[in-house]
Amino acid sequence: MKARVTITLKSGVLDPQGKAIESSLHGLGFEGVSGVRQGKMIELDLPQTDEAEARAEAERMCQRLLANPVMETYRIDLES
Amino acid sequence: MKARVTITLKSGVLDPQGKAIESSLHGLGFEGVSGVRQGKMIELDLPQTDEAEARAEAERMCQRLLANPVMETYRIDLES
Repeated sequence: MKARVTITLKSGVLDPQGKAIESSLHGLGFEGVSGVRQGKMIELDLPQTDEAEARAEAERMCQRLLANPVMETYRIDLES
Repeated sequence: MKARVTITLKSGVLDPQGKAIESSLHGLGFEGVSGVRQGKMIELDLPQTDEAEARAEAERMCQRLLANPVMETYRIDLES
């Protein structure tokens, strides 16, 4: 089963990369854009075929490695 | 309108970060995981309220700044 993990900074955390992208977009003439935030997206193939098992495995991966619980939140999407 | 741009490496392009994550996951005991690829996800608020206009604006942003057309592909999801 394919999993797609989207990891973003928690809303209160400063996002310097997002700010840099936003100012570059303004510099290129995209005046009205705002609220730019950058995150990570990780795709991976899991051996589990059962959705609940695959989700639990992906959760464990997020907690052990993929996401920093202090500053980041994550979302798991599964595709069979 | 909120746009979510997901930028990933084209399938033929080597993904060293994905490989590093994959070997770390194996080291943590997640033996069966494979095909790990990392991409970027950028969220932004667009002034356009019309979906077609918002998508066209996001497309222009991807082509001008957000995605490297040589190595990356992008997907745009809109949320009104």
